[in-house]
Amino acid sequence: MRAVDLIRKKRDSGEHSNEEINFLISGYTSGEIPDYQMAAWLMAAWIRGLNRSELASLTDAMLYSGHVLNLSRIPGRKVDKHSTGGVGDKTSLILAPIVAAGGLTVPMISGRGLGHTGGTLDKLESIPGFNVNLSLDEFYSVLRECGMGLIGQTDEIAPADKKIYALRDATSTVENIGLICASIMSKKLAEGIDALVLDVKTGSGAFMKREEDAVLLAELMVETGERMGKRAVALITDMNQPLGRMAGHSNEVAECIEILSDSGPADLRELSIELSAWMFFLGDRTKSLDDGRLLAESMIVSGEAKRKFKHGIHLQGGDERVVDDPQLLPQANSHADVLSSSEGFVTGTNCQDFGTALAMLGGGREKKEDSIDHAVGLEFHKRIGDRVEKDEALATIHYNSGAKLAEARNLIAESYKIGETAPSQKRPLIRRILGG
Amino acid sequence: MRAVDLIRKKRDSGEHSNEEINFLISGYTSGEIPDYQMAAWLMAAWIRGLNRSELASLTDAMLYSGHVLNLSRIPGRKVDKHSTGGVGDKTSLILAPIVAAGGLTVPMISGRGLGHTGGTLDKLESIPGFNVNLSLDEFYSVLRECGMGLIGQTDEIAPADKKIYALRDATSTVENIGLICASIMSKKLAEGIDALVLDVKTGSGAFMKREEDAVLLAELMVETGERMGKRAVALITDMNQPLGRMAGHSNEVAECIEILSDSGPADLRELSIELSAWMFFLGDRTKSLDDGRLLAESMIVSGEAKRKFKHGIHLQGGDERVVDDPQLLPQANSHADVLSSSEGFVTGTNCQDFGTALAMLGGGREKKEDSIDHAVGLEFHKRIGDRVEKDEALATIHYNSGAKLAEARNLIAESYKIGETAPSQKRPLIRRILGG
Repeated sequence: MRAVDLIRKKRDSGEHSNEEINFLISGYTSGEIPDYQMAAWLMAAWIRGLNRSELASLTDAMLYSGHVLNLSRIPGRKVDKHSTGGVGDKTSLILAPIVAAGGLTVPMISGRGLGHTGGTLDKLESIPGFNVNLSLDEFYSVLRECGMGLIGQTDEIAPADKKIYALRDATSTVENIGLICASIMSKKLAEGIDALVLDVKTGSGAFMKREEDAVLLAELMVETGERMGKRAVALITDMNQPLGRMAGHSNEVAECIEILSDSGPADLRELSIELSAWMFFLGDRTKSLDDGRLLAESMIVSGEAKRKFKHGIHLQGGDERVVDDPQLLPQANSHADVLSSSEGFVTGTNCQDFGTALAMLGGGREKKEDSIDHAVGLEFHKRIGDRVEKDEALATIHYNSGAKLAEARNLIAESYKIGETAPSQKRPLIRRILGG
Repeated sequence: MRAVDLIRKKRDSGEHSNEEINFLISGYTSGEIPDYQMAAWLMAAWIRGLNRSELASLTDAMLYSGHVLNLSRIPGRKVDKHSTGGVGDKTSLILAPIVAAGGLTVPMISGRGLGHTGGTLDKLESIPGFNVNLSLDEFYSVLRECGMGLIGQTDEIAPADKKIYALRDATSTVENIGLICASIMSKKLAEGIDALVLDVKTGSGAFMKREEDAVLLAELMVETGERMGKRAVALITDMNQPLGRMAGHSNEVAECIEILSDSGPADLRELSIELSAWMFFLGDRTKSLDDGRLLAESMIVSGEAKRKFKHGIHLQGGDERVVDDPQLLPQANSHADVLSSSEGFVTGTNCQDFGTALAMLGGGREKKEDSIDHAVGLEFHKRIGDRVEKDEALATIHYNSGAKLAEARNLIAESYKIGETAPSQKRPLIRRILGG
């Protein structure tokens, strides 16, 4: 078998056998197939597509390129959630403590932010001392002790995905539903979990702008999970505006603490309860989804989830005092309001631009090598449907360097669409549910 | 400008500006754009295509990536011929001496064989001592002295093409009409010629199996030549069977000497006269194509072309005695006939397989690094339309190592299609003429 022939096959819309996909992925992971051949194959696959059978082979090949965690010595069910990402999407930091407090184990392997989206690891690192780089043994020990652990992708987990993702990023072959599915599922299945809840975002702040693409990706992921013997559900959720009121690192952690303190914005609470409920239900912790909702609520109201969060932070070397005093998180030294230039109603947002503005101010990465200012953040005062007066603050920027302030402020102001009348109907936060 | 954005643009069927193409080609030539990004772009361009304007930009960018020969100090018109290649396609070695003898200058920069096709440089190197690696100064001096020079692509000539071609070969992005056109024309235009005759092969032994693809490539090349102020013509010629009776290196050179000695097979003579006539006509040496034919004939009959070939060989360090005594060329030590297993008429050939069989026996390259046995060759006894008896020899193999003899013999035997009746009409050798 030769890589050049497999590239030609995909270029000519051919279908790969399982052996062919294995040859490509194992050859690339080991370095026998060079970057340039994989890049050509990825572009051919991006354009020509991968069918269900090829996708299954690809996911398996990537999954088994590394180590699949063996959590059998940790008692009970293991569940996780994955989100396709957006602006202000911070639910991982809320779900892990709720679900661990409720009695399941949550072995969460997360990523970093890139472009307009934030990353769970970066948010956690705004907590002084928090260490996301645990060894697998340390990770097992944390999971055993408190039921939740939040780490980054190690070299052992799906190394093929790590190498392929970096190449896709440099060759404009990221936004393909099949490749995205294989990338996500190979990592998540390597966690050794029993059930997986998927939050597939759609809208102006999501990777999948069109709902039909989100649905297709969701279907593929649920199918892949079930094929591997996992219970899986996908919630298609709205990302036409930021989730919650905060974007940035310190202030998203603070907002998660608000939710765990039985406060905070309604949309973020609603989604956190729903996702937790699905994790409880699929993890066989509750008999029904409704029971899952009740259990999630009670974990918040009783303060158990908040205590779990503190414990988890402590075990991973972080300063758990931030949970009681979020001012201990890095704080920006300056604030600036973004004012509305007209009056009316917010009819929509170019939500991705909020993320871009945040990155511009240092609160996100434009390139992988960029460092992040955890204190920089955006606070959104207006949501879709809200009445706005001229010169009223739409949002507040928390910043340290004013270098790109004017540019970011314009981007944010222009991202808000103001119309004369309010949108006639509210779009639900949870659009559709697949699988489960 | 960033390569990753240009890859995305082509992936999404966008049209590149001249600046964008220049950025890609100059960045890749200088090493700033890595192989993997160029590979992804090439695959996107292969699948999505390049329009006329992008193709013009690409050809120019590749042409000006290096040195354009300045032949202004050599008096008279300079003309060249390029063929897209096939089996037994040896006309360069005949045309160069005919046209130089007729008074024009032929600065021919040629390539090596790969896969089923032979290369002019390899054929020349079967002449003991022949040096195809002249410096540009030596090349100019040979051209000035005898009007013909045959060398390989130097580092100065279209370095972008050299680098891109190697990458295309490894990434299955070779067979694309736009990329082929840019590759050929950037090299040919770098020769500093006034006119170019293109021999675009079509049929079972050509890269362009379908005549419509050959015509499209021919149109693009003629258009590109004319855009650059060159006179250009393309002859679409048949490659459903080998050209002439010989394939291989020594025996193709010997067959060229036969033609220059006013002998040899009719098809090879016919095409050589036609291509020479076009070179004379486009090079303003004759007023009409008919006058060009007469001049070409007279250069053969008078022996002037043959004397010119000797002179050219001598100036490039070769043993010119081979012209009078072709036995001085490397000779194979064994011969084996390929017999027909049935009687009837030759109705066609899988011509490419002859080239593959030749390479298998050491008389061609499967990979670029392979060395060539110049003595190995095939001699074809039967042509399309010929009557064949059972057990009559279809071809004779000249070989040194019997290692793959049986396999090659089978491939050759199966390549001949034998039917009960002769094909109803003869397909003309020259199918169409474009431009001129």
